[in-house]
Amino acid sequence: MHPALKKYLEGKIVLSAEDEQLIDSCFKLRSGKRNEILIEKGSIARHSFFVVKGCLRVFLTDAEGNESTRFLIFENHFGTAFPSFIQQKPSVAAVQSLEPSELLMLSYNDRELLLREVPGWETFYRKGIEQDYIASIQRIESLITMDAKERYQILLQTQPQLIQRLPGKIIADYLGISQETLSRLKSKK
Amino acid sequence: MHPALKKYLEGKIVLSAEDEQLIDSCFKLRSGKRNEILIEKGSIARHSFFVVKGCLRVFLTDAEGNESTRFLIFENHFGTAFPSFIQQKPSVAAVQSLEPSELLMLSYNDRELLLREVPGWETFYRKGIEQDYIASIQRIESLITMDAKERYQILLQTQPQLIQRLPGKIIADYLGISQETLSRLKSKK
Repeated sequence: MHPALKKYLEGKIVLSAEDEQLIDSCFKLRSGKRNEILIEKGSIARHSFFVVKGCLRVFLTDAEGNESTRFLIFENHFGTAFPSFIQQKPSVAAVQSLEPSELLMLSYNDRELLLREVPGWETFYRKGIEQDYIASIQRIESLITMDAKERYQILLQTQPQLIQRLPGKIIADYLGISQETLSRLKSKK
Repeated sequence: MHPALKKYLEGKIVLSAEDEQLIDSCFKLRSGKRNEILIEKGSIARHSFFVVKGCLRVFLTDAEGNESTRFLIFENHFGTAFPSFIQQKPSVAAVQSLEPSELLMLSYNDRELLLREVPGWETFYRKGIEQDYIASIQRIESLITMDAKERYQILLQTQPQLIQRLPGKIIADYLGISQETLSRLKSKK
C-alpha cells in the first residue's frame, strides 16, 4: 500500500493483510500537473482523490466565466466533486490540481467494493464524511456570519501555510473577497 | 414504532421485529412549543431530532444579538446542532422549534447503540449523512455564486411551501437578505 495512505489509515481502522491488499488494488496512483483539470464541469465524477502531494481546488464557473472556489483540499485528505461522485450525475463544479500533485484515485465501483468487503471500512468512511460535513457547516457559518476581515483572520489562525502557499487570486476567491481587499488585509496584519 | 419513523425507514433498511423494538426504545417522543429553544448556544447537543411535525431552525447569534439561520429542518428529516452532537462539545449554534412541533429524540448514546447493534443501520445512516453533506455543499454554492434574487427563485422552485409557511424575517435571514429586499422580490414575482 502507498505509505501515505497506510499512515493515514493507521489508528483509524485495523486491517488484515488480505484487506490491505484489496485496498491497495483499489487505489491507483496518478500525477496531476499544475492547473490541470481532473474533473470537468458537466462530466460525471468517476473518482475520489486522496492527496499525497499537492492541492486540489473544487470550483464553480458562471456564464461569464467567473470562478468561485467551493473547497481547497490538501495533503492527507480526500476530495472530489462530491455530489456528482455520490449521485453519479454530471457535476456543476470542476476539480483542478492547483500544484504539481501526486494522487491516489478511487473509482466509484471500488468505493462500493471497499464499503461492502472490508470490515470496518464503512465505519472509517462514515466518520470521515461526518468530519467533512462538519467542515462544510463551518464554511457556511463563516459565509453567513463573518465579514472579509474575520474570514481572513480565521484562515490565518487555522491554515497559515495556505496563505503562503497559494496565489492571492485563489485565496481571495476562497474568502469571497477581491484581491485588493486581500492585499489590504495582508498589509495590515 | 412511531408510524412517521416507520414510514421513513421503509425501503431504506430491512429490519427484524427485534431490531424494530430496539429502535423504538431509542426514539423518545417530545413536543416543542412555538419558538422554544431545544438546544442552547454553548450547551452540548445531547440529541438528534427526527421531525414528525413542525419545523426546526439551527441558527447563530453574534455579540450584538443578530441571528443568522444555518439550516431549516422540516418533516421527515433529522436535525440537530450537528458538530456539537458528533463531537459532544459546546455548540456555537442554537436549535429552535419554529412552530408547535412533534419530535422523536435520539440521544448520542442511543445513536452509538443503533450503529453498533442494528445490521444495516450504519449504511442507512451513512447514506443519510451523504445527502445532508450534499445539501450543505449546495447551500455553500448558493452563498458563493448567487445573488439574493437567484437564491429566492431557487427557493421558490424547490420549496415554495416554505415561503408560505414561515415568517418573512426567517426566510430573509435564511437567504442572507434584508426583509425589504425579500418583500421587493415577492412583489415582483
